[in-house]
Amino acid sequence: MIGGVSTGVNTQTMTMLGANRVYPIEKRLLRALLSRSGNPPLGIVLWNGEEVRTSHDPPVARIHLEDRGTLLKLASDPEIHFGDAYTDGRVKIEGDLCALLEAVYCGMQDRAKRGVCAMLNSRWLDRRHNNTLRGSRRNIHHHYDIHTDFYKLWLDPQLLYTCAYYPSPSDSLEDAQVAKMHYVCRKVRLQPGEQVVEAGCGWGALALHMARHYGVRVRAFNISHEQIVYARRRAVEEGLSHRVEFVEDDYRNIAGKYDVFMSVGMLEHVGTGNFRELGKVIDRSLHSTGRGFLHSIGRNTPEALNAWVRKRVFPGAQPPTLRHMMEIFEPRGFSILDVENLRLHYARTLEHWLERFEKSAREIARMFDERFVRAWRLYLAGSATAFRVGTLQLFQIVFARPALNRLPWTRGYLYEHDATPQREQEWIRAIS
Amino acid sequence: MIGGVSTGVNTQTMTMLGANRVYPIEKRLLRALLSRSGNPPLGIVLWNGEEVRTSHDPPVARIHLEDRGTLLKLASDPEIHFGDAYTDGRVKIEGDLCALLEAVYCGMQDRAKRGVCAMLNSRWLDRRHNNTLRGSRRNIHHHYDIHTDFYKLWLDPQLLYTCAYYPSPSDSLEDAQVAKMHYVCRKVRLQPGEQVVEAGCGWGALALHMARHYGVRVRAFNISHEQIVYARRRAVEEGLSHRVEFVEDDYRNIAGKYDVFMSVGMLEHVGTGNFRELGKVIDRSLHSTGRGFLHSIGRNTPEALNAWVRKRVFPGAQPPTLRHMMEIFEPRGFSILDVENLRLHYARTLEHWLERFEKSAREIARMFDERFVRAWRLYLAGSATAFRVGTLQLFQIVFARPALNRLPWTRGYLYEHDATPQREQEWIRAIS
Repeated sequence: MIGGVSTGVNTQTMTMLGANRVYPIEKRLLRALLSRSGNPPLGIVLWNGEEVRTSHDPPVARIHLEDRGTLLKLASDPEIHFGDAYTDGRVKIEGDLCALLEAVYCGMQDRAKRGVCAMLNSRWLDRRHNNTLRGSRRNIHHHYDIHTDFYKLWLDPQLLYTCAYYPSPSDSLEDAQVAKMHYVCRKVRLQPGEQVVEAGCGWGALALHMARHYGVRVRAFNISHEQIVYARRRAVEEGLSHRVEFVEDDYRNIAGKYDVFMSVGMLEHVGTGNFRELGKVIDRSLHSTGRGFLHSIGRNTPEALNAWVRKRVFPGAQPPTLRHMMEIFEPRGFSILDVENLRLHYARTLEHWLERFEKSAREIARMFDERFVRAWRLYLAGSATAFRVGTLQLFQIVFARPALNRLPWTRGYLYEHDATPQREQEWIRAIS
Repeated sequence: MIGGVSTGVNTQTMTMLGANRVYPIEKRLLRALLSRSGNPPLGIVLWNGEEVRTSHDPPVARIHLEDRGTLLKLASDPEIHFGDAYTDGRVKIEGDLCALLEAVYCGMQDRAKRGVCAMLNSRWLDRRHNNTLRGSRRNIHHHYDIHTDFYKLWLDPQLLYTCAYYPSPSDSLEDAQVAKMHYVCRKVRLQPGEQVVEAGCGWGALALHMARHYGVRVRAFNISHEQIVYARRRAVEEGLSHRVEFVEDDYRNIAGKYDVFMSVGMLEHVGTGNFRELGKVIDRSLHSTGRGFLHSIGRNTPEALNAWVRKRVFPGAQPPTLRHMMEIFEPRGFSILDVENLRLHYARTLEHWLERFEKSAREIARMFDERFVRAWRLYLAGSATAFRVGTLQLFQIVFARPALNRLPWTRGYLYEHDATPQREQEWIRAIS
């Protein structure tokens, strides 16, 4: 069960206080809340129908507050309670949800204004969702072990649940996810016969893609049981199970020696406190000419993920800064070859996901309930907005052992129109 | 006067001890020194003609030690005294200098073995060459205010004294330096009419290139008097002085607001302790849609620059790690868009410089003396080797204000064969 969202509104108490009346102190509370949020250009419609605005300009969108209890909760911790109240239907949106979120995110750039209550909630979540071996398993189970049929409704057919790469902005999600897999494989210059270890393999699409198109052998790790079962079945069906092994285990238990370390979309779940250990795992796993690739959601400055998203959607998730990420590489002397920020590609990917999600909203409501639909709508819309306004980043990092000189001379080969794996191998041989 | 290298060998004392004899304890000292250096495959020929080797394989090259004093100094601090002894002719090399240095660098990957004396020397140099406002001026004067005629003998005609970019490995140095300037301008997507501030502009080639080819206005800062005088003369001669202003001042004194912050090859001289201040300077200089570019020598792991190079060639220089560099950007919320490591391009650049330097060695000896030639040969060969074996990196970083969305959709435009500034502008307009 995703979320475990509870309403927690005591309507009896509300009625006793005079449910329809709005007291002056409540309006002052609302004004203070709006001011702390940077006075976004919104209209707030109170339970008596009265509208409070931050300016005379027409509002980008309107938020309807159903009752006094919702306002009080929002005032104590807007980050968590906005999401919960939207999920429960105690907050309703009139207008475009993404436009509303964009106005709020842009207003809230200065997070120093987060209140005491919100700070305590945020710390408590960190502690509760700590990514120990057991904690990680619980956190990953919460999100990824929802039945695969749900994800099939709005992800691409190969179920890639990470940022796609759009060579052209008008590409379809399907094409962009295939392009992403090729882009990633070419960034790390996979060569036939190489041994690859993948940390966090989702439903197995990339592992199978690497084996099929680049002739490598892959051991892919994941602690989501549901995903591993799915990936193994796919490997058998596609005749690739002799070249791809799916292991249901934590990245910390990776054993063996490999030419390439790959990880796409796992680092967000590792926790910065475990980065040195991850570096140690990569170090002991790679041959002396080894190289690797990390793809992760990130931040410009250290800041916890939105508390509601952590509480209801992604327990334990923590988008690191590049400085955090260097704690993986620096102590082990790895050489960073290339970093690319693809945040606008993730915004586009999430827009595609949200669009497909909305098309399947009725079916999803039948699978779960309306509250689930609202929670996931908010999570997808909020994520798209965060990447678009630049509060979240998407970093791709290519790294290698320090003395590896068999490197492409420039990055031009990544953008050749007639590029094929064969062409690329010739190209690398020509310069090395 | 570059270097101020002194011999410091007391030959009288040596004679009294029996100059030609080699005592067993001296051979033990040499063996210990070789072991601390990872036993590189070299032959060490002592002052009595005897050769000491680390293995039975033929040595990559031979080092001739002229006297016992040199051995003793090498044993106390090989990093500083090898350079000084080579400069003075008390150490002679038989065979290829670059091959010898490569063997030594590869052997010395584990720097934990640096002795107490060397550590103290290294710290003393750091303190002496501290990059305060006055210290930076003294440090930069030491290296860059050598007469320009000297640099003209071995740099490209436009006097670019930073890593070139070779679209093809066989490109000439001249072409590669022009390609570098275009590459850098295109990475940061200069647009006609924009205001650019350049921190550390050398002899002015990039500032003039930006104004000429990209239609921008440039204020370029440098604390090397000799370089600024040269750059100003060039601006007048080329009719660009109305669009390029050369300011003889420290980057810390940059004032005004700009669209783009550029810095190619200055960060190595800033000192990591000043990175937060540099971030503050960039922050206050950039408009809300501003972006920037940094190009710097770097390290995989924190480590001081070779002590001899700091003492004799580049006082105050300190190649930062990417983690260090993030101290510029993270506190100010800048978004890292792109990082590229071009260390093999710097190795190639240095090989070209060394080749041209050797062709002019006689003339340089007439300008200065033979000791100067040897010191610079060692510095150029040592740098080429460090980039080739991967103990030094060359990072190019593109960054921007966090909410800037007018970004190229992919990096492909950088590698289009028919790319021109106009073509690129159309391309950016098409996607934004």
